[in-house]
This record gives sequence, C-alpha cells and structure tokens, in this order.
Amino acid sequence: MAFVKSILITFSVGALSFFLSKGAGKDLGKREGYIIVSLVWVIFSIFGCLPYLFSGAIPSVTDAFFETMSGFTTTGSSILNNIEELPHGILFWRSMTQWMGGMGIIVMFLAILPTLGIGGRELFIAEVPGPAPDKLTPRIKETARNLWGLYMLFTLIETILLYVGGMTFFDAINHSLTTMATGGYSTKQASAGFFTSPFLQYVMIFFMFVAGTNFTLSYAAIIGKPIKMFKDEEFRFYALMVILFTFVISTILVISGGFGYEKAFRDALFTVVSIITTTGYATADYLLWTPFLGMLIFVLFFVGGSAGSTGGGVKVIRILLLFKNSFYELKRLVHPNAVIPIRYNAHVVDQRTVTNTLAFFVFYIIIFMISSVLMSLWTPDIYSAFSAVATSLGNIGPGFGEIGPMENFSALPALAKWFLAFLMMLGRLELFTVLILFSPSFWRH
Amino acid sequence: MAFVKSILITFSVGALSFFLSKGAGKDLGKREGYIIVSLVWVIFSIFGCLPYLFSGAIPSVTDAFFETMSGFTTTGSSILNNIEELPHGILFWRSMTQWMGGMGIIVMFLAILPTLGIGGRELFIAEVPGPAPDKLTPRIKETARNLWGLYMLFTLIETILLYVGGMTFFDAINHSLTTMATGGYSTKQASAGFFTSPFLQYVMIFFMFVAGTNFTLSYAAIIGKPIKMFKDEEFRFYALMVILFTFVISTILVISGGFGYEKAFRDALFTVVSIITTTGYATADYLLWTPFLGMLIFVLFFVGGSAGSTGGGVKVIRILLLFKNSFYELKRLVHPNAVIPIRYNAHVVDQRTVTNTLAFFVFYIIIFMISSVLMSLWTPDIYSAFSAVATSLGNIGPGFGEIGPMENFSALPALAKWFLAFLMMLGRLELFTVLILFSPSFWRH
Repeated sequence: MAFVKSILITFSVGALSFFLSKGAGKDLGKREGYIIVSLVWVIFSIFGCLPYLFSGAIPSVTDAFFETMSGFTTTGSSILNNIEELPHGILFWRSMTQWMGGMGIIVMFLAILPTLGIGGRELFIAEVPGPAPDKLTPRIKETARNLWGLYMLFTLIETILLYVGGMTFFDAINHSLTTMATGGYSTKQASAGFFTSPFLQYVMIFFMFVAGTNFTLSYAAIIGKPIKMFKDEEFRFYALMVILFTFVISTILVISGGFGYEKAFRDALFTVVSIITTTGYATADYLLWTPFLGMLIFVLFFVGGSAGSTGGGVKVIRILLLFKNSFYELKRLVHPNAVIPIRYNAHVVDQRTVTNTLAFFVFYIIIFMISSVLMSLWTPDIYSAFSAVATSLGNIGPGFGEIGPMENFSALPALAKWFLAFLMMLGRLELFTVLILFSPSFWRH
Repeated sequence: MAFVKSILITFSVGALSFFLSKGAGKDLGKREGYIIVSLVWVIFSIFGCLPYLFSGAIPSVTDAFFETMSGFTTTGSSILNNIEELPHGILFWRSMTQWMGGMGIIVMFLAILPTLGIGGRELFIAEVPGPAPDKLTPRIKETARNLWGLYMLFTLIETILLYVGGMTFFDAINHSLTTMATGGYSTKQASAGFFTSPFLQYVMIFFMFVAGTNFTLSYAAIIGKPIKMFKDEEFRFYALMVILFTFVISTILVISGGFGYEKAFRDALFTVVSIITTTGYATADYLLWTPFLGMLIFVLFFVGGSAGSTGGGVKVIRILLLFKNSFYELKRLVHPNAVIPIRYNAHVVDQRTVTNTLAFFVFYIIIFMISSVLMSLWTPDIYSAFSAVATSLGNIGPGFGEIGPMENFSALPALAKWFLAFLMMLGRLELFTVLILFSPSFWRH
C-alpha cells in the first residue's frame, strides 16, 4: 500500500505538471538545462522518499530524504540501524534508487553536462561521438540506449553470478543493482562483509571495478575493440592506482600479522576498489588498521571513479590532468618562453579544459574545507567532520571516526543530514551544475 | 667556546670555498639561481647547528639540524623540552636564526624568486619597482636595503615596547626577533603564554600582524603613502580574514562561558594572528576549544601571510586569486564565448600568473596529501600526521594532536624529523624552487 500511495501521488503531480506546462515552448536553452539537472535530483528525492514514509520504515522526513538522496546520488550513506528487519519491498526500492541514479549519471555525464559546457567531453568520449553542442540529438538517444543496455547486461550477469555463488536471489539482485551504480546499499546491516565467501567478494570486486570504468570504453571492449581500453590513459592510471594501493596495503597487512596472504589481498583489494569507485561496501573495518593504512584509504576518498562511469568523486581523469599540469608547470619554469601544452591520449588538451579542471579541484577543496568547518558544529571531533564531508561530497558512503564503515549517520542532528544531502547532490552533479545556480551572472538578463 | 668553534669552522670552510671558486665565472644564470637558493638554506642549517652541538645544548645531530632548519625557515617547531635551562647565548642564537631567516625571505621573495620566474611579482611590488629580469641590479640592493632597514626599525621598536611593558631586556629582544620573522621561537617553555600581561600580548599581536603584511606596503605607509596599503586588495583580504575569524572565535568563546569579553577577544585575536601570519606563538591551548573552533584554526593553517612578508604558507594573495578564479569560472560557464580576465588591484592578471597560482595550490595539496601518508608511518594517528605536515609545510610551528601548541616534536623518530625539516624548506622556498631541482628537464642540456 505504501507503494500504491506513492505511485498515485507521484503520478498525479506528474500529470498535473504535464498538463500545466503543455503550452510552454519546447526549446530548452543552457540555462534551463542547468536548472532541470539540479531540480531532477531534488524532485526525485522528494517523491522517492514517499515509500519510506508511508510504510513507516523511516518515519522521519529528514531521515527519509537523506536515505533517498543518498540513494539517487549513489552515495550509499545510511541512517538505518535495522536493515534486516525492513520489508523486502522497501529494501528493493532502496537499491533501485541507486540503480536509477546510476542510469541518470551515465546519461548526464556523457550527454547533458557536455552540452552545458562542463568540460572535458572530448577527453573521454572519443569512441561514442557526442552530441552537437546545442540540443539533445538522436545521437545522444542512441548513445544512451547503448550504454544503458550495457548497464543492464552487467547487472544481469552479476545477479546470476552472485546467485550461483550462494546468495539468495533477493540479495543477489539487490547487490547487483547497487554494485553497478557504485552505490553501496546492502540488504545486510554488516554490508558486503556479511558475505564471507571469497567467490562472492571477487565477483563484487570485479563489477565494482567495471562500474568505475568509463562505460564507453567497456562498450568498445564488448563490441570487439578491447585494445581501446588498454590504450586509454585514464583507464591505465585507474588500474595502476588500484594495483599500487592494493599491493601496499596487503603487504602491510601480511607483515603486521594476523592475515593470510589471500585474505590480506582480498580485504585490501575489496577496500581499495570499493573506495576508489565510491561504492562504499565494507568488508574490513579499515578503522582498525594502522594510521598509515587509514591514511591511504583517506587519500582514495579524493580520487573517485573514471569519467563516464557511475563513480563519483574528483574523478581519475581530473587527478591525472592535475598531476600532468603540475609537472608541466615545472617544465614551463625551466623554459619560460616555450609553449608546452598538455597531451592526453596523444591529443593536445585545450587550455580551457585545463583551467576548468584546475578550477574544479580548487572548488572541491574550498567546499571541502568550508563544509568541514560547518560540519564540525555537529560532530564530536574534527576527524569525523572531515570524513562526513569527504564521503558525502565524493558520493562514497561510509567515513571515518563516528561514521566509520561499521557505523552510520543516524545519530547526526537533522540540520547536519540536510547539509550532507546537499553535499551529495553537489558532488554528484560535478559541483558546477549546482554552483552556477548561485552565481549572479547566471540570473542576469 | 661553542660559538668560537662554530665561527672558526664556518669561516674556514667559507674561506676555502671562496678561494677554490675564485677562478669561476661570475655570471649566474637561472639554473644556478635555483640551486643556490635551495642550497643556502641547507648550508646555513648545517653550519647553524654547530653551536647547539658544541655547547651540548642539543646533543643529537638530527635534533640540532631540525631546530636550526625550523629557525632559518622561520617555522618555529621545536624539539626542546627544557628551554628555560639553556644558556642565554644559545637561546639568542636560536632567535637569531629566525631573524636572519626572515631577512633572507624578504630579499628572496621580492628580488630573487621573481627573476627565476616564480610568478606574481607584478602583483605585489608595484610600489618598489623590481629588478630587471636577468640579474641582480643595484635596484635590488636598494630595495633590499630599504626593507631591511624597516625590518630592523620594527624589531627595535617592538623590543623597546616589550621592555617597557615589563619583559626583561633579554626576553624583549628575543621575542622581538622572532615576532618580526613570524618565527615563533620563545625563551619560555610556555611560549608567549608565559607573558600574561594584556599590554605585552597586544604588542606582540600588532607586530605579528605587521610582519605578516607585505613589507613594501609598510614601507609605502612609512614614507607617507598609507593610502596605498588600504587600497591593496591583498592587505584588505588579510585584514578582513583576521577580523572575521577573531569575531567568530571570540563570540563563541564568550557564549560557551568561562571567558570575559576582553580575554576572549585577546585569546582569539592572538591565536588567529599567530596562525595566519605563521608565527606560531601560543597563548591559549586551542586543542581545548570545541571541534568547530579547532577546525577554524586548521583552515587558517592553509592561508599564511601576505606576499612580501616574512609569513609562510600558501599566502593570502594566492588564496584571493584562487577564490577569484573559481568565481570567474562560473561566469565563464555562463558566457562561454566571453573572455573574462581576472582583475587584481585594478590591473588585469596575466593568464600565466593565474595558471602558476593554480599549479602552486595543486602542488601544495598533492604534497600535503602524500607527505601526510608518509608521516602517518611515524605518528600515532592520522590527525597528528596531517597537522605535522601542515604546520611544517606552512612554516607555522605548533600543530594539533600529539604536536599541539603545548607539546613539541622531540618524541618523533629521527627520520620523521629529517622529513619535516625538508618540508619546512620546501614550503619556505615556495615549493617550485626546490621541486624544480627534481625535474628532469631542469638538468637537461
């Protein structure tokens, strides 16, 4: 009945809006684009929390909105303390919010944001030609359809593998939905750590890694051009980081004792992939690791998935461009009169794209700092404030301290939850989409 | 005798090098410039630690080098646990390292770095025309002489005021030397907090603030053009931040109780000015404040003094340019075809300067993150690792956690001390000067 009520309300409001706006023009400009993209996430979250409220699964409006925004943004932070007690319908809806959010991200990142001038399209959609700069063309529809098909295919395969590996069908489909979205909601209070089978964990690791990879590259690989994937600089950097961090962490876990080789490797790999792809599933409680290992995990909070994946965060390609630009800056100091452009995948990167990437990173850090200051009004220590902000802005899920992988967000005051929900949206929409709405020049003429 | 031995050794090595290099050419290129600037700080610190070693005040070479590098870079982090027991000569030498370091910084920032192409000269030395781009001209000598004169004048006035206010002459001269250098070494184990007289604290606050101000602006003010100072955007932003942070912190201290108005204001102002100017004197133990206040202080760790001051850190002007560029980026997204340059003090800022500033900030954050990871090998928690790196890279002095304002660095392992000493140098030399030495293109041809 909770779903019937939610559907009726959502449908009525939708139909009403449809008829009321029937006379309006159909030409959408950039300005409308920005507003729509931001509004979509808010409106989805408002209507998306109805099932939680009507069913009484989450009685508080604040909590329900937080859980829904965390779902649609594929963040995966939760306020629930009693996941196993909830009805299956509610848990499935919870996983669906993430899966639908993931679909939205793919089309937004590949098709909508580039038309709004939020940079870098030329860097990652060489394989699947992008849209004309002004409006949604049939080309985008085709691209979206292909990539969504792929998204569904991966979800299906993972579901089968998880089921074969011993999960119930319900657990298999839910974990598959939230893996492919890099969301991280689980049907178990203990998160993915509930499933101790190495096979199941490796399946989830593999699909998290895939979900954090540019979908256009996976598409190219599927239609017979896997070489494109291995030639792609972002993919190589992404794979390299996973290998490097896993190697260091598992080595230290083995040396510090108490871990077999395979278990250390699996725990390290699972955690690294889960954090870098911003999924946020937990198997190991990384808070129990040494400060050095905790610090390595914290650094990964600021990386994120690949462009064109369902992963959040700063994104691998931006990190790569920032590194490149920094080292090129040293070259420029040595040769002040030489013009030294940045190359990426053998193409020269437009200066405009570099500046936009730098501005993005600076915004990210400024927002991270200011938000942490605000957040520290509500947390018991600085540490928890940093991690709550980092995990929300990066759409990861769990954090450190009071909101560590084995804790949750339920104890925070209401205002803090609304603020974190806003940060999730800000991070998910690549900052600029939301920030631009606060810029006076956006609203002029 | 420790000083006599140190002088003899230093003089002998100096004389030997002088004669050995007599035949060498005198034309210094940019490459030599970079090497010399970096080497100067290392060589000074090697010879500067001799008095500590010979006197037995600091028996360990690691500790002596750390203390000296911390002095010459005007950081002020200390490994000493028994400051009051040390002979006056040693304490005076300790303060002198900071004062001489401050002198070096002024001439380096205003005269040497710009000739090496480390950007932004045109932004802050409009008043005192800078050098021709290639070699040290008489103009620089004149600039340096004027600014050093000012530096000595300020030191003299502060000494007199501190003496009049009730310090012994020895304490007055030492605190004056380390205030003007924004160094923060004190002759008391309890740092400036030892002197509870409000008058003395306000004197130190005033001169810390002055030391964190662009010296060319102070020079202009002294020779009768104070209006230039108040028209300068960096100075206004610097003053605004001090006012804003002091207002928020003192208000919260009053509300949370236990503080009179004046005491809350003074503690807040002293702490804010001490941290933003990167002096690092402590009066209040900010670790005992709430997480929110601690977080505000931590944010200040990433600001630093003005360009052309003796303060370290990122520098106010860079923060200002980063903010401006970020907000201009939003404008650029709204008007993608418009050319929107950044203005500073009514002049258009060269795109090259903006890119350099952005690259500096990205380097700062990357180095901060990587160093924190390394540092966490040696600290008991993530928190102390972050703060040890932030305080060293920003040349501040005290940190948070295990190295808070009432603690010190003596307990860290030797490797950690060498690493932090390196970070102090890296931060003090505006990153690029040192980093460029690690760039392969620097050593080619």
